[in-house]
Amino acid sequence: MKIKSVLFNIDNTLYNASLQIENARLNAIRAMIEAGLPVDIENGYRILKKVVEEYGEDYPNHFNKLLEKMGLKWNPHVIAAGVVAFRETNLAFLKPYPDTIKTLLKLRESGYKLGVISDGRIIKQWQKLIQLRIQHFFDTVVISEEYECKKLTSKLFDVCLYAMNTKAEEAIFIGDDIETDIKSANESNVTSIRIRKGESRLIEPKTKRSKAKYEITKLSEIFELLDLINSSTSK
Amino acid sequence: MKIKSVLFNIDNTLYNASLQIENARLNAIRAMIEAGLPVDIENGYRILKKVVEEYGEDYPNHFNKLLEKMGLKWNPHVIAAGVVAFRETNLAFLKPYPDTIKTLLKLRESGYKLGVISDGRIIKQWQKLIQLRIQHFFDTVVISEEYECKKLTSKLFDVCLYAMNTKAEEAIFIGDDIETDIKSANESNVTSIRIRKGESRLIEPKTKRSKAKYEITKLSEIFELLDLINSSTSK
Repeated sequence: MKIKSVLFNIDNTLYNASLQIENARLNAIRAMIEAGLPVDIENGYRILKKVVEEYGEDYPNHFNKLLEKMGLKWNPHVIAAGVVAFRETNLAFLKPYPDTIKTLLKLRESGYKLGVISDGRIIKQWQKLIQLRIQHFFDTVVISEEYECKKLTSKLFDVCLYAMNTKAEEAIFIGDDIETDIKSANESNVTSIRIRKGESRLIEPKTKRSKAKYEITKLSEIFELLDLINSSTSK
Repeated sequence: MKIKSVLFNIDNTLYNASLQIENARLNAIRAMIEAGLPVDIENGYRILKKVVEEYGEDYPNHFNKLLEKMGLKWNPHVIAAGVVAFRETNLAFLKPYPDTIKTLLKLRESGYKLGVISDGRIIKQWQKLIQLRIQHFFDTVVISEEYECKKLTSKLFDVCLYAMNTKAEEAIFIGDDIETDIKSANESNVTSIRIRKGESRLIEPKTKRSKAKYEITKLSEIFELLDLINSSTSK
């Protein structure tokens, strides 16, 4: 059976989300220090990361909590300085990898259907696709929040494959996180491809179930893999 | 008594907020139409304005409500397209007037203390000052939310004057909205200057209390006024 659909995770798969969030947080701390926050950058960053772990990534008032955690009085100038630097940096780093658009275009020209399966908040993930200017490449977009889960599960793969009228054996999926992305692709019998990008790029799988069938280090390498898979399954 | 402090409103006084919000809304509707919203731009804009009136400017889900009002199903692609276009346009139009920074700089060089008195949400207004890159010009920033009011009142003038160690007769205030900004400046005995900018530029005062002492059409005209006021009060 030939591959018909190519599915992608968003963060770290289509753009460098780890670099984006790290720089956004660092620049937020830098701006807050310039606005009077009495902390050095290493400690400020460490406290901010603790706040994010404690309240979750989508909590809207990280910087308020940072001041609280440091025992400081609420200060609108400092908080607003952090918010502005965070947003501006976030936007500046929301750029596709150099080969993302070329790869998506070549896949479409070769007749593949493209889909997105991503964890996260629906509007937030859609915003990323739109700001990356790549939303029109995809036939189907499935975001975990819509199905009331935080991380990828095999259920989301089933939903996406159904919408794309594609059998599991006719699809490949590219993602960076082995314990969620790759594991649930494996559970759905979709051919899993790990892209070694982002902060999880050095982690090794805990079990066989989270081991990807193939590995790449950049998106454009999937054409070789597609040739390989298509020639082996056609026998 | 010579003028010692110059106080400014933010929206439409230091930058063109009316142009910003109008374009942000229009571009949001345009992007939503491109993403599939079945409406023409005039009607879409009209419905959006109704939603804003009904739920308030700071309500976070205007575009969800727009779809609801049109009897349409929730659609993350359409909503995210609106949010992205709104934010990008908002940012693109967040620019000081051509004479804002020159005027603020010349005032500081001439020895005036500068202050901000603005209605609105604290963090949002601080963000504007920071993104306009003008926050360092001001000694004191007073935003209405901190004092639990939505619009300017004479109380906010008292707070600002106290913080700036300035008597009411030693201050001038520049604002665009006569029924709130100018009226409360008058009530505080601060010399009121109306800047004819933004959507309220053509409105005439309802009562004598909302009539400004002076009027300008651009910020740089305050130097002439300062000369006039300083020479008349020194007699």
